[in-house]
Amino acid sequence: MNNIPESLGTAVNVQAMVFGNFSDDSGSGVAFTRNPSTGEKLFFGEVLFNAAGEDVVAGIRTPESIEALQARMPEVYQQLFDTQAMLEKHYRDMQDIEFTIQEGRFFILQTRSGKRTGRASIKIAVDMVKEKLITEKEALLRVSPEHVEAFLHPMVDPEAKQDLVATGLPASPGGATGAVVFSAEEAVEETAAGKKVILVRRETTPEDIHGMKVAQGILTELGGMTSHAAVVARGMGVCAITGCNKLTIDYSAGTATTDSGHVIKRGDIITIDGIAGEVMLGDIPKIMASSSDDFQILLSWADKYRKLQVRANAETPEDAAKAIELGAEGIGLCRTEHMFFAADRIDIMRGMILSENRTEREGYLEKLEQFQHDDFLALFRIMDGKPITIRLLDPPLHEFLPHSPEDIKLLSDHIGKPVSMIEAAVSDLQEVNPMLGLRGCRLSVVHPEITEMQVRAIMSAAIAATEEGCHPLPEIMIPLVVNVREIRMISEIIDRGIHSVMKEKTLSIRYKIGTMMETPRACLGADRLAADVEFMSFGTNDLTQMTYGFSRDDAGKFIPAYLTNKLIEMDPFVSLDQRAIGKLMKMAIKDSSKKKKGIKYGICGEHGGDPRSIKYCHKLGLDYVSCSPFRIPVARIAAAQANVEEA
Amino acid sequence: MNNIPESLGTAVNVQAMVFGNFSDDSGSGVAFTRNPSTGEKLFFGEVLFNAAGEDVVAGIRTPESIEALQARMPEVYQQLFDTQAMLEKHYRDMQDIEFTIQEGRFFILQTRSGKRTGRASIKIAVDMVKEKLITEKEALLRVSPEHVEAFLHPMVDPEAKQDLVATGLPASPGGATGAVVFSAEEAVEETAAGKKVILVRRETTPEDIHGMKVAQGILTELGGMTSHAAVVARGMGVCAITGCNKLTIDYSAGTATTDSGHVIKRGDIITIDGIAGEVMLGDIPKIMASSSDDFQILLSWADKYRKLQVRANAETPEDAAKAIELGAEGIGLCRTEHMFFAADRIDIMRGMILSENRTEREGYLEKLEQFQHDDFLALFRIMDGKPITIRLLDPPLHEFLPHSPEDIKLLSDHIGKPVSMIEAAVSDLQEVNPMLGLRGCRLSVVHPEITEMQVRAIMSAAIAATEEGCHPLPEIMIPLVVNVREIRMISEIIDRGIHSVMKEKTLSIRYKIGTMMETPRACLGADRLAADVEFMSFGTNDLTQMTYGFSRDDAGKFIPAYLTNKLIEMDPFVSLDQRAIGKLMKMAIKDSSKKKKGIKYGICGEHGGDPRSIKYCHKLGLDYVSCSPFRIPVARIAAAQANVEEA
Repeated sequence: MNNIPESLGTAVNVQAMVFGNFSDDSGSGVAFTRNPSTGEKLFFGEVLFNAAGEDVVAGIRTPESIEALQARMPEVYQQLFDTQAMLEKHYRDMQDIEFTIQEGRFFILQTRSGKRTGRASIKIAVDMVKEKLITEKEALLRVSPEHVEAFLHPMVDPEAKQDLVATGLPASPGGATGAVVFSAEEAVEETAAGKKVILVRRETTPEDIHGMKVAQGILTELGGMTSHAAVVARGMGVCAITGCNKLTIDYSAGTATTDSGHVIKRGDIITIDGIAGEVMLGDIPKIMASSSDDFQILLSWADKYRKLQVRANAETPEDAAKAIELGAEGIGLCRTEHMFFAADRIDIMRGMILSENRTEREGYLEKLEQFQHDDFLALFRIMDGKPITIRLLDPPLHEFLPHSPEDIKLLSDHIGKPVSMIEAAVSDLQEVNPMLGLRGCRLSVVHPEITEMQVRAIMSAAIAATEEGCHPLPEIMIPLVVNVREIRMISEIIDRGIHSVMKEKTLSIRYKIGTMMETPRACLGADRLAADVEFMSFGTNDLTQMTYGFSRDDAGKFIPAYLTNKLIEMDPFVSLDQRAIGKLMKMAIKDSSKKKKGIKYGICGEHGGDPRSIKYCHKLGLDYVSCSPFRIPVARIAAAQANVEEA
Repeated sequence: MNNIPESLGTAVNVQAMVFGNFSDDSGSGVAFTRNPSTGEKLFFGEVLFNAAGEDVVAGIRTPESIEALQARMPEVYQQLFDTQAMLEKHYRDMQDIEFTIQEGRFFILQTRSGKRTGRASIKIAVDMVKEKLITEKEALLRVSPEHVEAFLHPMVDPEAKQDLVATGLPASPGGATGAVVFSAEEAVEETAAGKKVILVRRETTPEDIHGMKVAQGILTELGGMTSHAAVVARGMGVCAITGCNKLTIDYSAGTATTDSGHVIKRGDIITIDGIAGEVMLGDIPKIMASSSDDFQILLSWADKYRKLQVRANAETPEDAAKAIELGAEGIGLCRTEHMFFAADRIDIMRGMILSENRTEREGYLEKLEQFQHDDFLALFRIMDGKPITIRLLDPPLHEFLPHSPEDIKLLSDHIGKPVSMIEAAVSDLQEVNPMLGLRGCRLSVVHPEITEMQVRAIMSAAIAATEEGCHPLPEIMIPLVVNVREIRMISEIIDRGIHSVMKEKTLSIRYKIGTMMETPRACLGADRLAADVEFMSFGTNDLTQMTYGFSRDDAGKFIPAYLTNKLIEMDPFVSLDQRAIGKLMKMAIKDSSKKKKGIKYGICGEHGGDPRSIKYCHKLGLDYVSCSPFRIPVARIAAAQANVEEA
């Protein structure tokens, strides 16, 4: 759990025995120099008279509060109190102390840095700086980045947990309660009717976004920590459990049956805990670890001591605003395709895909361009003066098409094309391995008109923003590149798009062109890409998928067996594989920076929000990490820790 | 077509003009020192009197045979004859000569090595060695490996071609004629009824094997040069065209409609040319470039001068026998899953997959073990004394399950499980990206009992073969490895399997354990794999898929655009990408051989049969290449050329 290798072993102390169960003026206890739950600077402990330490730990007898010791043996209490103060001062950290009293004589058995909640760790760290016990840098190292994240979400009250019926992967933190719905449509309807819902699906796809957006939480039977549901939920800051394969979902019956045979029906109230991955029946109370001044102080120190820039993965104005609020220094990944899934746009996108000739397609592209223009303009306003890395259309086109007969019928009515034609197109675009198919910059090669439209939208929005007095900094990012010729061909398409907009306007806009580094081939041949790009952003999700041959959507079926059999130490989608993926990144940076100085390097996969991975990115010398808005504080802390640890 | 880069340009000679169209004692002509079609050592040419060279080339007037010159201007003819003999001797190769006669005076305009058919190239090379004009090594360099391959198959007579209705990718060479069928079942039925058939499918899957086996040729709408249809067809030596996307297939109507609207119906006779990728209506005559003594002589020289071993990819006794006949030195890739698709086995395999408990599964595994035992025993007999590299079960299990309602019903009747249960299993095993899913050694991790069964079958067969006096050399190959821990875990499973067989027998059998190198991660971490393997076999099909992020099954949709736009010079599935895949291979060899001496390196992807790739493998220092039996002569020649060229 804490990534401590088994092989390290554990040390053993041998010391003389003392007896707390010798007499009534004997006893044992545990004390903390500060409150480990809240962090308050308040000596805190428990004691059991005429008892050994084991009795305290075993919980057979209920210990008394430390005040009982003060009342009964004031001298011993004073010894304990003085000692704890000295120990904390000596170790310069909150101490967890075990003590024993044998016939009125006081012994310290053990002292160590005390375990604490996230909230306490932050308060203690900040307080100790105020007390001049530790430096700001040390304070930063006292906080675990995971603690920081939990800090940002409401949590299921651990004291109140009950009726646990299933567990899955803790895909997105926080706790949520709602009525079970089995489709995005239901989620939207029920929410509109004033209900809070938990969206339960076998897995989610981009077509579910509108339902995921309104749900309190998301629960899926399939998928791992980086499945669509997990990534989107973390991005939205919505709590989620994925890979809950103890649950059998039957859409038509509207039921989810647990391993033990309990049937959860549509409309049942459940609570999900995205930190523990637990599904519970009923409404379990939540507690709010709200943001505090201490937290803001700590983050300000993090910004002072970190080198890595922190950007956000964001497309919507809401996410962008959230990102700014949480301290983002720009957008490192704006996934333009997310802009096409909204209800008022998806059919235009579909019409474009299904167009039978150039004129028809251009009609749809014009409409899409207007939408994208507005979207980008909104982002440029929010990110005024901060860079926005905009990735060109990435997913395979079939992801946009409807699949169920009802949806196909609806689309047919809407865009006036026969059902048979739509069915044929759906089947024609189908792919065996969509992950390795016609997507990324391959779309630009096959459909340059889409890229040109996107570039026009970006640049016309940048011009409009500039005219309003904003300072847009667009960075156009080409996805899924395997060689430099793709970049050159697409740069020409980009130039065409830019010139067709510039002709109409006189402002000149500064922009950059760069590439995602997400195929092993791009990394292996980075020296050849260098001359044609201004930035390289490692897309370590796809890079991991391809380097391992692990599909994110399918690996849930074997990664658990890999972890159980200790074939891998960590899920490589959760924490960057420094050995192989790191080797590719190192090669890419070394080979490309040799060819050209000044290339900016970043990372924009899910790893950009993982503390271990962020520290590794610092070591690699990246310029920035980009992550979900909700992970930005985590990234700021981790980046600072990396730099402090290095020094 | 010949892999000559455009950038090379072309040289231009400037020379004095002479006129063949000056008078009746003037003329122009072309001559070959030997027959370019048959290779016969017979001076051969054409002449046009009172005509310029352009007239000969343009084909407006029909030239006369060179004998006409001999009759009309015997002195000039003698000059030409003497000159051609001198030129051939000087250049030590068959010459293609252009000449002009101006008012009775003879001029040579140009001489160059003449283009020739495969048949001619072999005959000329062997003859010239007999004539002591060139050495054996030179003779080897005079033959193009592609020529060698065409030599092995019947071809559509180029003179007879007509009624071309569609073109696709030349996936497997040769020519074939038959009645169109649209399913493997039809193919089997019609063949049983005495008809010859061409199997026409959108794409093929392992379930179509029985139909592909009996078809004269295979034609698919989808898929590239390394799609299932292409790979299997080449393996079988059956002619095939893939990616023929000018054809729209309607299974229910039993029609394939061409771009121009021609409808090919079930039962129509068509001819396909797997060398040109052309589909023609009717029965077009074929010519047979049968094997010749010259060819055998040339191959014997190839064996004398090559360093690379040549092995075959083979599973069936027929393929293994063919491989031996064509000169294989062992089997480099025995895909055990192919043994499970036969009609009498597939339902046992399916029963095993669908087993609900250990006892049930073990029952099926026992039956499968008996089949595999028999298969391996047959192979060990044929490959007596030669190594057989046996790959453990590789494809995802869903590939074995039926998908159509009818097939599910049949299976349900056969194995006595409810249709709903089979449907649930099919849907449960479904994967988004099967290429990157639960397959390869991941199957061994999740289902060790299958691996153990396979190992028992291999070793018990090896023992039986030894008892018969054969010398089996099994090499067990672990597919899709990403790290050494997989190899260690599976080696333990293998040991278990071996010991459970050995307990019963007393013979000791020498065997090797090795790994496929087919994920980028395996290559990047080869140093860590070295200690635990005796051989490494590069699976460059998958390695290319993952390094590029190109799915073989889907890349047909964009590779043509990549070639047209010159984004890639060659389809990386056809010819090994030396820059990136080569880099990974080089790293793997260097890093692993540093850690342990004596590891054998091989290649067993489709590239193992591609001459350019074979030459590169020689350069990399591999020990062997493995390819379809039908490509073995090609590989022998290419391997020899690589070694001769290097020297």
